[in-house]
Amino acid sequence: MTDHHTPISAIGEFGLIDRIRKTIDTSRLGKTSEHHLIRGIGDDAAVYRPQPGKIELITTDALIEGIHFDLTFTSLRHLGWKSMIASFSDIAAMCGTPRYATVTIAVPQKITVEMIDEFYAGAAFAGSEYKCLIVGGDTTASPGNMMISVTVIGEAIEERVRYRSGAKPGNLLCVTGHLGASLAGLKILQREKSRFQASADQSAFLPNLEPYAAAIEKHFLPKPRLDISKLFEEHVAVTAVIDVSDGLASEAHHLCRASKCGAQIYEHNLPVIGTTQKIAAEFGDQASTYALYGGEEYELLFTIDDKEYEKLENLTGDVSVIGRITGTPEEVELIEEGGTSRQLQSNGWDHFTERG
Amino acid sequence: MTDHHTPISAIGEFGLIDRIRKTIDTSRLGKTSEHHLIRGIGDDAAVYRPQPGKIELITTDALIEGIHFDLTFTSLRHLGWKSMIASFSDIAAMCGTPRYATVTIAVPQKITVEMIDEFYAGAAFAGSEYKCLIVGGDTTASPGNMMISVTVIGEAIEERVRYRSGAKPGNLLCVTGHLGASLAGLKILQREKSRFQASADQSAFLPNLEPYAAAIEKHFLPKPRLDISKLFEEHVAVTAVIDVSDGLASEAHHLCRASKCGAQIYEHNLPVIGTTQKIAAEFGDQASTYALYGGEEYELLFTIDDKEYEKLENLTGDVSVIGRITGTPEEVELIEEGGTSRQLQSNGWDHFTERG
Repeated sequence: MTDHHTPISAIGEFGLIDRIRKTIDTSRLGKTSEHHLIRGIGDDAAVYRPQPGKIELITTDALIEGIHFDLTFTSLRHLGWKSMIASFSDIAAMCGTPRYATVTIAVPQKITVEMIDEFYAGAAFAGSEYKCLIVGGDTTASPGNMMISVTVIGEAIEERVRYRSGAKPGNLLCVTGHLGASLAGLKILQREKSRFQASADQSAFLPNLEPYAAAIEKHFLPKPRLDISKLFEEHVAVTAVIDVSDGLASEAHHLCRASKCGAQIYEHNLPVIGTTQKIAAEFGDQASTYALYGGEEYELLFTIDDKEYEKLENLTGDVSVIGRITGTPEEVELIEEGGTSRQLQSNGWDHFTERG
Repeated sequence: MTDHHTPISAIGEFGLIDRIRKTIDTSRLGKTSEHHLIRGIGDDAAVYRPQPGKIELITTDALIEGIHFDLTFTSLRHLGWKSMIASFSDIAAMCGTPRYATVTIAVPQKITVEMIDEFYAGAAFAGSEYKCLIVGGDTTASPGNMMISVTVIGEAIEERVRYRSGAKPGNLLCVTGHLGASLAGLKILQREKSRFQASADQSAFLPNLEPYAAAIEKHFLPKPRLDISKLFEEHVAVTAVIDVSDGLASEAHHLCRASKCGAQIYEHNLPVIGTTQKIAAEFGDQASTYALYGGEEYELLFTIDDKEYEKLENLTGDVSVIGRITGTPEEVELIEEGGTSRQLQSNGWDHFTERG
């Protein structure tokens, strides 16, 4: 151990990941006869070739109580679902199919057997919906908060796997579904929790969540876009894909950095549903801010040339063009409603710098 | 969510695992054309056939601060090593070879960048020693304790995979290496921590750990028995294998339950090194108690017929016969030094029932 100590917040989550990548350096072992690592740390999932002609993907996501979820307004069943979905979404972003999962939980004493039943029921339901088998995991006590870690193994066809690094200047920048609703839903849940805590008669408190249902559902029960990634795998050639887990602005920067290009995003093209707009208005926020910076959307951000996009449009109505890839490396520009443009900062949700 | 709530301590870790297995029921999906699950929850690792002629293993282990480790006397480098070894040991217990790993950490604010460097350096060193590539993972903040989750993918030859369920009456019950040292080392570390905390001048406190080095090393730097499992894979046919992570008594019960048989264990045959005996004597304990109930040994407990054992003896001196498999289901009997016998309880280390 060195004498010098740097807080993680000084370098952030992505600085930390870069550093870990250097520490574990797979360059030597990755080229032995036993290993065929195609892509390690740095994309949505790792890619390896266990034997000639066969490609597997592996991805892991951790969900930590107090960082990723709040048990005072989250059901264990929804949490089980979402824990699986986060990894399915990574597999979708590689144009693969989830196959096998391990689910690990560390639980504090307040968690009962019945709550764990609910958690696994939610996880198993997600597995069943997307044909991914839960084959193992670990269960342990935690003296502190609850922690969940899910690893998913996926399959893919080698020539159809897509990385963050394939975008080309001139490509359209597109996104599936709509953005900002997950954050909007979370803001409502947090507001109602505060109201409940502040209410004089808590037993009589009943939040009115109905008008916000679409956003709350997106927050609790997001769907991985395996429906769209299947189109990429079978019918339409995209050039790069990443999933929106930390926020559009952050993911656009990741994609541009990996592809050594830049992007222009048109603010008025960002897909936002009415419920999200309504919630943003209630908080006095711009809905586009939620769309740009809200995490846990599990939509796919991808790049594609015009010709392939025409084919895609005929197959689904659930994608939007939000911008273009440019030749200016790592410069992500937002063209605002009024026509003025500004540099878009990459700050998505960084758990290390946002906390406390 | 039901209204009835049962504390996990009422059913214990293994009761919980049984319940999870029922909840996630893989019987339906496990038989579709896309999945070829051979063994799910309930052995050291899950086994599946991603395509004809190919077998893969997957296992996950979580290490939680305050349950599995104490950062006041554990270096992050050792912790990185041990996190990987725990899963390698599970792969060894299936007679497979570790290939790819994902490493996930949730870290509280007290953990610095340099400490994470050390953690991953230890993990990468373990990977490099046993030719297993770290290909991904997740890093996140934790508002509470530190948590680690490692998943390892292994390879195996289908006809050489061994389960907990293959033991036959008359088989020899054997163990690799020696037992009890990990717990003995931990007891010394905990004792010295108490002495440090109670000392009048903490700056002058210097524990004398040298006489206990062999036990402390076994606690911090255990080695997976991939050397022995390689012999099982290539030269000697064992009938059942399990790794000793929760303690010999507990693992013997798991093996007997899975194999629908019983076992007799001879107390005087338990392999215990001098350092462990010395430590047990200092605490006024029986060394055999450490050997029977101490966890985190990462040795292999296995069963074998007499003829194959003769072959094994010629290949390694690092295995001991500690008993025999009997035809009495689930009855594990300890033949004590004096010749009297008693039923051995299954209580290994159960994190849910042992905690505060």
